Amino acid sequence: MEMFIHDEIPSDDVDRREKVLSLLTDSVRDLVDATIRSTVGDDELVAVRDEVDGLVARLRASQLPGPAGVRFNSEGRSWNWGNAVVGRGNAIAPPVLNVHDDASGSAHAEVTLGAAYEGPPGMVHGGVSALLLDQIMGETASGFKRLTMTGTLTLRYTRPLPLGPVRLDARIADENGRKITVEARIGVPGEAAAVEATGLFLIPSWAPVDETEQGWSRSAEG
Amino acid sequence: MEMFIHDEIPSDDVDRREKVLSLLTDSVRDLVDATIRSTVGDDELVAVRDEVDGLVARLRASQLPGPAGVRFNSEGRSWNWGNAVVGRGNAIAPPVLNVHDDASGSAHAEVTLGAAYEGPPGMVHGGVSALLLDQIMGETASGFKRLTMTGTLTLRYTRPLPLGPVRLDARIADENGRKITVEARIGVPGEAAAVEATGLFLIPSWAPVDETEQGWSRSAEG
Repeated sequence: MEMFIHDEIPSDDVDRREKVLSLLTDSVRDLVDATIRSTVGDDELVAVRDEVDGLVARLRASQLPGPAGVRFNSEGRSWNWGNAVVGRGNAIAPPVLNVHDDASGSAHAEVTLGAAYEGPPGMVHGGVSALLLDQIMGETASGFKRLTMTGTLTLRYTRPLPLGPVRLDARIADENGRKITVEARIGVPGEAAAVEATGLFLIPSWAPVDETEQGWSRSAEG
Repeated sequence: MEMFIHDEIPSDDVDRREKVLSLLTDSVRDLVDATIRSTVGDDELVAVRDEVDGLVARLRASQLPGPAGVRFNSEGRSWNWGNAVVGRGNAIAPPVLNVHDDASGSAHAEVTLGAAYEGPPGMVHGGVSALLLDQIMGETASGFKRLTMTGTLTLRYTRPLPLGPVRLDARIADENGRKITVEARIGVPGEAAAVEATGLFLIPSWAPVDETEQGWSRSAEG
């Protein structure tokens, strides 16, 4: 697996760039929605396309050679702006924000899913529920302090989930050495779950079991 | 659940619009990638954002009140341009195309996943694999001729999947009345699977078991 990138940018500069990038990303996300829903004439679609191509060229005037990756500086700030669920520079990400780690091994998030997340008519795509659940379950397993990887993920679809506001909840159900079992759900806020999930997350044999005790820089053991 | 929309547009006009819309969507998808990877200055990001907002306004001059839904005409042509995985108007969709129904109850697709689908550094997000698998497994279960809904989905992650070209394969493993079991996998083309999946798909009690025998217009029985 490719490594995390040590990018020695002061945290203040990272915060400032993230803010500017987030605003652009919000607008691109809006453009994704407008493209799906627009009923303007074909000629106008072609004209808008030409303008979009021009903006792509301006952004690509200077760019990373590949994906954004996951970066960190020596102040302990890390950022993954390209992440498909939480990345602040990724217009595909809803984005899921405010994922709280409650120290009790649980997390939750609320997000509104629009036209871009549709599967069955008017409903959230079942695979989008799986995508968001995988992210929050992985974050819950890691506790934002250790590396984990998805081992197995089981999803039970109990009712359709309409597009609109949704709430995700996740909690650690069991922990046994390098195996962490997480239970989670997604549904309309305040209503019964639409999808229930159980996941087994693994701490790789080359990674420490608890990063907070042993430090990020400690090399692999075990 | 919201219903499918009868939209009496001649198939030729649907095809023409889909072509124009797909070209715009391809450019917006390119903009999503460029936004993630751009390293141009903050001022330029702000300037590009203003331009994007202007294009959003032009597209929204005339638009659907909500999501795109799933539409069909009386010629038997159907289209779901907003779908999160296969929608030709959805820049979030990779899009997965060329999903072949081999009449043997199997399907496959190849697609290249770029920076927008990242999870671990340089790797496809585990939830993105789940998203794409759910779509192709549902299409395989339905055989493109009957309505099915995801019941349960189990995913086993066996190795990391690098960003780049991937191949999906799915086949019906068992069929028993209204219950259809589908097995699927995603991985680097020609290599061992990165994620293996088993899904149970259900034909709702109000839908016919075989649409090809009973006709799309037949109302629910059973």
